[in-house]
Amino acid sequence: MGDRILHDARAAKEASRALAALGTETKNAVLRAIADELEARRDEILGANARDLDAARKADLPSAKLARLELTDDSITHLAAGVRQVADLPDPIGAVTTQRTVPSGLRVKKVRCPIGVIAMIYEARPGVTVDAFALCFKAGNACLLKGGKEANESNTVLAGLIRGVLEVHDVPSGALGLVISSDRADLKRLLELDDCIDLVISRGGEQLIRFVHEHSRIPTIQHFKGVCHIYVDATADVDQAVDICATAKTSAPATCNSVECVLVHTDIAEAFLPMLGARLVRDGVRVLADERARGIMPHSDPADENSWGREFLDLILALRVVDSLDDAIRHIERYGSNHTEAILTRDDANAEAFCDRVQSSCVLVNASTRFNDGFQLGLGAEIGISTSKIHAYGPMGLEELTTQRWIVEGDGQTR
Amino acid sequence: MGDRILHDARAAKEASRALAALGTETKNAVLRAIADELEARRDEILGANARDLDAARKADLPSAKLARLELTDDSITHLAAGVRQVADLPDPIGAVTTQRTVPSGLRVKKVRCPIGVIAMIYEARPGVTVDAFALCFKAGNACLLKGGKEANESNTVLAGLIRGVLEVHDVPSGALGLVISSDRADLKRLLELDDCIDLVISRGGEQLIRFVHEHSRIPTIQHFKGVCHIYVDATADVDQAVDICATAKTSAPATCNSVECVLVHTDIAEAFLPMLGARLVRDGVRVLADERARGIMPHSDPADENSWGREFLDLILALRVVDSLDDAIRHIERYGSNHTEAILTRDDANAEAFCDRVQSSCVLVNASTRFNDGFQLGLGAEIGISTSKIHAYGPMGLEELTTQRWIVEGDGQTR
Repeated sequence: MGDRILHDARAAKEASRALAALGTETKNAVLRAIADELEARRDEILGANARDLDAARKADLPSAKLARLELTDDSITHLAAGVRQVADLPDPIGAVTTQRTVPSGLRVKKVRCPIGVIAMIYEARPGVTVDAFALCFKAGNACLLKGGKEANESNTVLAGLIRGVLEVHDVPSGALGLVISSDRADLKRLLELDDCIDLVISRGGEQLIRFVHEHSRIPTIQHFKGVCHIYVDATADVDQAVDICATAKTSAPATCNSVECVLVHTDIAEAFLPMLGARLVRDGVRVLADERARGIMPHSDPADENSWGREFLDLILALRVVDSLDDAIRHIERYGSNHTEAILTRDDANAEAFCDRVQSSCVLVNASTRFNDGFQLGLGAEIGISTSKIHAYGPMGLEELTTQRWIVEGDGQTR
Repeated sequence: MGDRILHDARAAKEASRALAALGTETKNAVLRAIADELEARRDEILGANARDLDAARKADLPSAKLARLELTDDSITHLAAGVRQVADLPDPIGAVTTQRTVPSGLRVKKVRCPIGVIAMIYEARPGVTVDAFALCFKAGNACLLKGGKEANESNTVLAGLIRGVLEVHDVPSGALGLVISSDRADLKRLLELDDCIDLVISRGGEQLIRFVHEHSRIPTIQHFKGVCHIYVDATADVDQAVDICATAKTSAPATCNSVECVLVHTDIAEAFLPMLGARLVRDGVRVLADERARGIMPHSDPADENSWGREFLDLILALRVVDSLDDAIRHIERYGSNHTEAILTRDDANAEAFCDRVQSSCVLVNASTRFNDGFQLGLGAEIGISTSKIHAYGPMGLEELTTQRWIVEGDGQTR
């Protein structure tokens, strides 16, 4: 298996040179053809996915994992639409981000270019195979994709379909390599191929992300856990705050931008907590509250030190009463994951202080944490949300899959 | 020593929170006070540097290393001027790089923010201690600096001076940590502190950079070797080409942006090589030429496979005759280091093809490779030149020492 990985990585490196010079029209034609093929070969894809699902049920995979693994008629339509949407986005490559003539007379430009070869390690979600390829390819990058092994059958069909389209369009099929080994030794080997691979993006379980981070010689960007906080300030609009906190927990509890902990200013606790409590009971959310909150909010369980900084990914919410904005910020500094934090307030100075001092990838005022998302922030699409500060912090769209280089034009200048 | 490193790293992390919220005026006042102190305490700095130089001479350090280690009256004046120049540069922190209102009504901004804590590992050049601190600090970052051990006495005085100024201005002195151990085990320990340190920048010898890259759990940016090429196309202006190639080698042979290899199109070789040869002989440059070049250029030694891809950092130049632009690009793909490449040509199509296909951090047309430099490209100052593609590619100035996060303002939006 190791030789196969090396072969694919070298092919990706070779292909990346052609991709860097590929025109926008060709890239978009390839993407549209992939979307068409996804719809045309729906039965074959669903057949492979059914085999994955069968095996996963036999292996007693938890229902949340089964849900991620499953493809449906609808999700294939959605995938194809997503690929067409990427084709419609502006091509980031070649965009000039800075331009000037310097005193020596040189005409200097900073220009977006591909990163080169991107390896992506992710969970057993076959849709990601298509999304990740589409975004990497549009940004001129070759990619090596390693999804969770439970999706091997689905991924093999999807990658074969994409490589077929590449060949028809005379694009080197090395632009997509699929790593299907689930052997950690093979993964380790992949992470050492810094001659061929320029960036590793890891997403999914905490253990896997740590493994990748610790063993990689290649720069990594981590889409790590989201321990998102909402701070309800003394001057918050109570009805609005109840609505934001409850939906930020319940609308998609398994996503990384859902809220895990609500911090409530003591001055608003008596007005706010009973209303929030009633709403959470109605919505089936279990609350782990500190002692001061429990006094006002009977339907809750006691929180302990383990309740803070937890990514529940479930209908569970931690809740704590704090004495000040400072205390809220200190809690976030200690337990947050740099993902997403929100303040609900009618006090502009507090909103500003919160935004200045909380250095998470996305800080919101009077809005749900669930808006930290590439589509919602206007990126058009995203490959995930980075909690690494280097290169890309927050949702990674097309631009974040590029780098920038300098192109300089002179008239014989020496130095 | 390990405990001291952990202590400094934690202090830097703590200080980084205060630095992120520090106003531009305070930062500039600190920088100007540092510049004043450098000039006022000139004798003390030169005294410490004399002790470093004594020890280095006793240890028989090569003269190039001694030159890097030495501070003079002039270099201190220059250092102080550099720090004042950083104070004069616009503050990158808080700059809004993208702003839009999205369909949900959210006002979305992408804003520059500090990276946090930056560790920098570099050679025995005490000036870098001041330059690196100034740039990191202006960009709102705390830093841990580890220079070559031969500069320990100089670095200790310089860091003490800076920390003194920080204290006078009520800025946590944890903003600058100086690591003076030269034990590789301590360095390894530093590279594992991913809870405290956000980025490692390594510069200097190839062996050290490889060690850092292989052992770091923290994202690293490498200022790696510059194996820079100039391709002299068939239509180049011969006089101009001689001038550019010769000065790009001789004006500062030990810098990373000096040329190491000239590739010459066969159609211009007979006109160009004798002139270049005469100039290089005059300038005392030893030429390692391939067989075809040697036929036209008698004062040269034979090149072998080892001559390509070498960073000589000396008055030595590799030279090869190629049959086409394609051959030149293939040579660069195989032997280049992604640092800087130039084409000399009067053919616009060839210039464009070269710029499109050569993906180095800086590609120049009709100008010397030596212009790949933060000052020359208009960045104002630089901490070094990155050959990593992630985060920053090419010269790293103030902007490259920041990251960007999202700040979102709503009116109660839920999702």
